[in-house]
Amino acid sequence: MRRFVSVPFSEVQVSGGFWAERLETVLTRTIPSQHRQMERHNMLRSLKLPQPVPPLTIPPFANGFSTEIFWDSDIGKWVEAASYALSHRRDPVVEAQIEAIIDDLERAQAPDGYLNCWYLEREPQNRWTNLRDNHELYNAGHLLEGAVAYLRVTGRDRMMRVMERYVDHIATVFGRGPGQKRGYCGHQEIELALVKAWQATGQRKYLDLATYFIDERGAQPHYFDLEREARGEEAGGYGQGTHEYSQSHLPVREQTKVVGHAVRAMYMYSAMADLAAEHGDTGLKRACEVLWQDVTRKRMYVTGGFGPSARNEGFTQDYDLPNDTAYAETCASVAMVFWAARMLNLDLDGQYADLMELALYNNALAGLSRDGEAYFYDNKLESDGSHHRWEWHPCPCCTMNVARLVASVGGYVFGLGADEVAVHLYGGAATRVQVAGVGVGIEEWSGYPWDGAVEVTVTPERAAAFTLSLRIPSWCRAARLAVNGAEVPVVPERGYVRLRRVWQPGDRVTLDLPMPVERVYAHPEVRADAGRVALRRGPLVYCAEGQDQAHPLHLIRLPRGAVLASRFRADLLGGVAVVEAAALASDAAGFGDNLYRTDPPGEEGTILTAVPYYIWCNRGPNPMQVWLRE
Amino acid sequence: MRRFVSVPFSEVQVSGGFWAERLETVLTRTIPSQHRQMERHNMLRSLKLPQPVPPLTIPPFANGFSTEIFWDSDIGKWVEAASYALSHRRDPVVEAQIEAIIDDLERAQAPDGYLNCWYLEREPQNRWTNLRDNHELYNAGHLLEGAVAYLRVTGRDRMMRVMERYVDHIATVFGRGPGQKRGYCGHQEIELALVKAWQATGQRKYLDLATYFIDERGAQPHYFDLEREARGEEAGGYGQGTHEYSQSHLPVREQTKVVGHAVRAMYMYSAMADLAAEHGDTGLKRACEVLWQDVTRKRMYVTGGFGPSARNEGFTQDYDLPNDTAYAETCASVAMVFWAARMLNLDLDGQYADLMELALYNNALAGLSRDGEAYFYDNKLESDGSHHRWEWHPCPCCTMNVARLVASVGGYVFGLGADEVAVHLYGGAATRVQVAGVGVGIEEWSGYPWDGAVEVTVTPERAAAFTLSLRIPSWCRAARLAVNGAEVPVVPERGYVRLRRVWQPGDRVTLDLPMPVERVYAHPEVRADAGRVALRRGPLVYCAEGQDQAHPLHLIRLPRGAVLASRFRADLLGGVAVVEAAALASDAAGFGDNLYRTDPPGEEGTILTAVPYYIWCNRGPNPMQVWLRE
Repeated sequence: MRRFVSVPFSEVQVSGGFWAERLETVLTRTIPSQHRQMERHNMLRSLKLPQPVPPLTIPPFANGFSTEIFWDSDIGKWVEAASYALSHRRDPVVEAQIEAIIDDLERAQAPDGYLNCWYLEREPQNRWTNLRDNHELYNAGHLLEGAVAYLRVTGRDRMMRVMERYVDHIATVFGRGPGQKRGYCGHQEIELALVKAWQATGQRKYLDLATYFIDERGAQPHYFDLEREARGEEAGGYGQGTHEYSQSHLPVREQTKVVGHAVRAMYMYSAMADLAAEHGDTGLKRACEVLWQDVTRKRMYVTGGFGPSARNEGFTQDYDLPNDTAYAETCASVAMVFWAARMLNLDLDGQYADLMELALYNNALAGLSRDGEAYFYDNKLESDGSHHRWEWHPCPCCTMNVARLVASVGGYVFGLGADEVAVHLYGGAATRVQVAGVGVGIEEWSGYPWDGAVEVTVTPERAAAFTLSLRIPSWCRAARLAVNGAEVPVVPERGYVRLRRVWQPGDRVTLDLPMPVERVYAHPEVRADAGRVALRRGPLVYCAEGQDQAHPLHLIRLPRGAVLASRFRADLLGGVAVVEAAALASDAAGFGDNLYRTDPPGEEGTILTAVPYYIWCNRGPNPMQVWLRE
Repeated sequence: MRRFVSVPFSEVQVSGGFWAERLETVLTRTIPSQHRQMERHNMLRSLKLPQPVPPLTIPPFANGFSTEIFWDSDIGKWVEAASYALSHRRDPVVEAQIEAIIDDLERAQAPDGYLNCWYLEREPQNRWTNLRDNHELYNAGHLLEGAVAYLRVTGRDRMMRVMERYVDHIATVFGRGPGQKRGYCGHQEIELALVKAWQATGQRKYLDLATYFIDERGAQPHYFDLEREARGEEAGGYGQGTHEYSQSHLPVREQTKVVGHAVRAMYMYSAMADLAAEHGDTGLKRACEVLWQDVTRKRMYVTGGFGPSARNEGFTQDYDLPNDTAYAETCASVAMVFWAARMLNLDLDGQYADLMELALYNNALAGLSRDGEAYFYDNKLESDGSHHRWEWHPCPCCTMNVARLVASVGGYVFGLGADEVAVHLYGGAATRVQVAGVGVGIEEWSGYPWDGAVEVTVTPERAAAFTLSLRIPSWCRAARLAVNGAEVPVVPERGYVRLRRVWQPGDRVTLDLPMPVERVYAHPEVRADAGRVALRRGPLVYCAEGQDQAHPLHLIRLPRGAVLASRFRADLLGGVAVVEAAALASDAAGFGDNLYRTDPPGEEGTILTAVPYYIWCNRGPNPMQVWLRE
């Protein structure tokens, strides 16, 4: 069923431009600073069993909830991000740091393979008694992803061997055999990790376990209820109320609404797409398509953010997309990139690439500061200036998630079919693939996302017939294309122009994707956006930050007819295209001492300046709006 | 310094019209049903010492906070409301209920006079150890107000004697003498109650104690800090953070910003205005004026609501007036009526009467359902339909507050000066006063608030020279006036037309106050109202309820030019003037499966129907907006 495979990060060179800059920041700043933060906050010491796991050095959440139980996952995710970083440039310091972690994991692992440092030290007798809440399999999944990444990049299998022992243990505990628990994790993640392990090793046991976890989910009697009863807890004591929170309220193939915790949902959908491809499972594929429609038609921020509510870190009702209280967790958008990439391999359909690009360039990328050492966990679309980036967090899940995404961004650029190469993202990348039996170099260059002039050079070892498919983003309505200078009509099929020809070494395709500034309006059912307009240019959603305006931001509106212009400003934020527009600012003149009056406020002309959403809050505390009053 | 005194509720007949209907509801429904609720929820049983105080029968707040400690105050407030009710119509059942409460109070009172049922039963050893949080003096204040009201209406002094013993005890405990505590209550209330007792009895000790409490407040070293240290608690353990919460952060004369818990603030400002008048204290009066300016210029909802935040039940920052999360507690607006009436006696200035009227007819009155048996505690200005009235509440403070306000509304109509009678409110009231040494009957009739044609008949015993001052509301810009049919130019002085003449029995003044529907705009610094408009007609602020519209409310906007018309609908909600306007409704046509698009939503014409804010949510759950998109 899978028509394409992603050309993996390890075989794609990010060769300059926008992502090269972000990547360099992640390599030189983010990865090392995250290791320092893990040391500072006792996370690395927590692996050094049998020493007591040290306490968290920053206060837990206000409700007293401590995140120490997730530390294995954070460390696993750092190993994964650091491994991706090594694929770009080897770094003996980082390698030594990873090796030291592997040393600790090897020492910590129980004789039977079990490896969860928190449980091993604190409650060894309570292993596997609360899958709903306590993230043991989630932690295992992230460690496994780290092990796979490190194996892929370095060829060293020591961490993978540790994790294989752990997975083997897990496979004895969980399953449908006699004496096994018919459980699965409350926080999905291990499923997609197991598919990665299968793909990296070819060992079927990983795929089988992933398949079991996905297929068993939501079966009745409900495992989390049985487990809760075994713990002697009342049903009413579950803070999240229903199993929608963990998307285990129904068997996955019967789910039609995106519900519950957004990150869990996206990781699960990613694994479902993986397994649909691995097994040719049309039921799983269809479920993914239905869920995709639901989230994109009713439950998605214009920035590619997901899950409006802090209460459940997740989804609420259709069209409920508040701006100033938006949760839109960084991890959820990172995970949407994962899911979209997998859907794109099932069907070369631009709707998947469009959303992958949207989430990547906007909500996900906003999670990382320009200097690479500060983060957003939740991504509001409006702030009065009180929402800031933080340098670390009691739950640092988003930090490593955005790091691993940027460090592996090359893995989302190219798709490889039987006799087809697809280019999904633009912006400076090169690879070498085997297509139609021939080795083919593909080099893509553009000033993306600032400029839509794209150049693709195709260099087969020898002349070869295959299809080069270039994505025409849905935001672009006037694309132009030429092959070796000869214009070719742009007739996209589901978002891709498919150029089938005999390619000669050095063939050159130029694609022009004009990027006018556009107004974006929300469906009228989105109450929060009524009477408001957002600005978009190419793949970037824009926002207005207070410090760029001549008037307080909340006074400004953008009238419907106003001319919008973009301008590249090399002096600003390392070089960004800003959007400028003739706008109006309310004026308190004449109000005197009145808080209310019968005449509307006067208005005066002003220039509105908007910057890309992903780069907001890099110049100190600052009010911000994505949705501007019109 | 006091130029006027209010003609008390007991000397004013509400003689028909709008308030007569509300009053009848309070007499026949609210007062009896509140007594039933107090029985049902164990509140009345809590007075029956030495039996154990029974537990609350409805769940406490989510944070586990129980309100049983306030029950004495709720019972005292019910006695007060019920006494006002008796002034309109004697009712042996209600009188027996009050007498039974007095029996219990007499039995419960400690030999030294102390009378707090919760402390007496639960923690007798801990009396007066936590004035900051535990409301002992607040409870005493409300019981005292009940006793004063019952005395005034019935002439029976048994409850007043109980309370005098308690106040005498309090006066031995608190003060600046040797061995006394230099304390005061965390929740102000007793101060204004003591002034009422002084006014009712002429006993100076009440006034002296009120004066001490106000003067001592905010002195350093701070009493609440000393008391906390004596309890062995850390400073950081105070949930409210600072003493702004109880307006004890500074001596009251130095306070210039309205801060903290809104009800505490309003009760305190009322007592400050009382004491300014009693003592001719210009410092207190000046402080009141500065605080008045602050709240009316920067911290007041258009509905006369105060305190936007649920967190502190109070004030936040200037211009912070969110609509859908507005707290705007009913009690705070009731207390604003108290404060405004007192300011009006200090200075006959229409700004005080305007706000008294606004709070009374809108935010305060909204607290009581049409049937008189359901309530709002917090008064949002926008609801998606999830904000409902409740029949009772773990903290029923607002229920008796709105009941006592309506039952005593006649007390806010007339002001009496040395040779002047002022009419502050219109709508059907009559009184007989002594002015310039002559007994004068004043009868006022109008169809207010639906109609602004007011008729005032003046009936002195004999021809007499005095001033009749009629309020010209600030919302009225085209008032017309005639005396015995002869037109008189309307030249208001600070909001009042002052008619000085020799009045003859039967002189008839007609005042026409046209009530066009008006658009109201907020100061541009009020972010929540930017691009929005409210509707007002006469004293009433309007709102749109979902069920009156042909389209979902959130789709509707009211364009700036739309004609606004009002129409009395006898069929609706017992008869109300509605406002109708040609409006526009957004239309999802053409959006198809898109959540976002580059074209704005289309619009179609619709009729917007708005009803008075005070009467919203009397027809089941329903979305509502005060501030409409323009």
